[in-house]
Amino acid sequence: MLIMGIDPGIAISGYGIISNEKGKPYIVDYGTIRTSPKVSIPERLRILHNGYLELIDNYKPDAIAVEELFFNKNAKTIISVGQARGVALLSAALSNIDVYEYTPLQVKQAIVGYGHADKIQVQQMIKIYFDMNELPKPDDAADALAVALCHMHSYKLQNIIDSRGF
Amino acid sequence: MLIMGIDPGIAISGYGIISNEKGKPYIVDYGTIRTSPKVSIPERLRILHNGYLELIDNYKPDAIAVEELFFNKNAKTIISVGQARGVALLSAALSNIDVYEYTPLQVKQAIVGYGHADKIQVQQMIKIYFDMNELPKPDDAADALAVALCHMHSYKLQNIIDSRGF
Repeated sequence: MLIMGIDPGIAISGYGIISNEKGKPYIVDYGTIRTSPKVSIPERLRILHNGYLELIDNYKPDAIAVEELFFNKNAKTIISVGQARGVALLSAALSNIDVYEYTPLQVKQAIVGYGHADKIQVQQMIKIYFDMNELPKPDDAADALAVALCHMHSYKLQNIIDSRGF
Repeated sequence: MLIMGIDPGIAISGYGIISNEKGKPYIVDYGTIRTSPKVSIPERLRILHNGYLELIDNYKPDAIAVEELFFNKNAKTIISVGQARGVALLSAALSNIDVYEYTPLQVKQAIVGYGHADKIQVQQMIKIYFDMNELPKPDDAADALAVALCHMHSYKLQNIIDSRGF
């Protein structure tokens, strides 16, 4: 299966696309969609929307995983990320792709093994897991890869649970 | 000019469409788009998006006015409204319609004359202003009419300022 992870943000949205179709999971693509603060918010949301749709159209992921928001940020940040996040979820819905949401705690537990790992530890685990030559950058792209990998793990686990009839 | 006001929300989004094309401003339409909590968030955002696009397509507003968020709500509410708001702004951008944002303070000042008016006072002023037989309901639709009217006032004022070369 092909999974697209998204770390939404108005200035920088990270994306990471991973697959396990050849056995061992590997990275298909990762990067960011950026929007300039010089253009209006509706226009920036349109740029994000077009970017998400283009990625979905190119890679045709089976599932999209999105990280849930930290609530300890300030209200201005929450509304700004919320708007970008709404556009990401809408882009998935318009493409008829199932969306899965994971809290930062779930992502860290899935990747590093405990919920209080820091950003560098997550990046290092991603680098090792996917045999990368360097740390995945920027943060936003690394976080998108992490949430995609978290979904791959959860999905596998769910399949095992289902097949054993737990 | 025809102005569409939007009060975005995930469960209920209010809309209000007003015009001053026949001299005295009048209400063209107002109401709500509702989504069921039984369906997923991405699907609810798609329903909102389709609803906004349908209204825009039907009425072809010259401008869309959206109320800015109260920041004194809890983070869960902010993210939820933020997501709906992002979809409203995107729908406007995809339709190439200019979006204007007003704070609740600006809306109340424009409608009632002072920033600390309560919801009922806003509804009463809308009722009187537009010669309605009853209070505009629900709140969400009344708020959407209020932000549309606020934009109409600001726009007129801006025209006067521009024409006098202040």
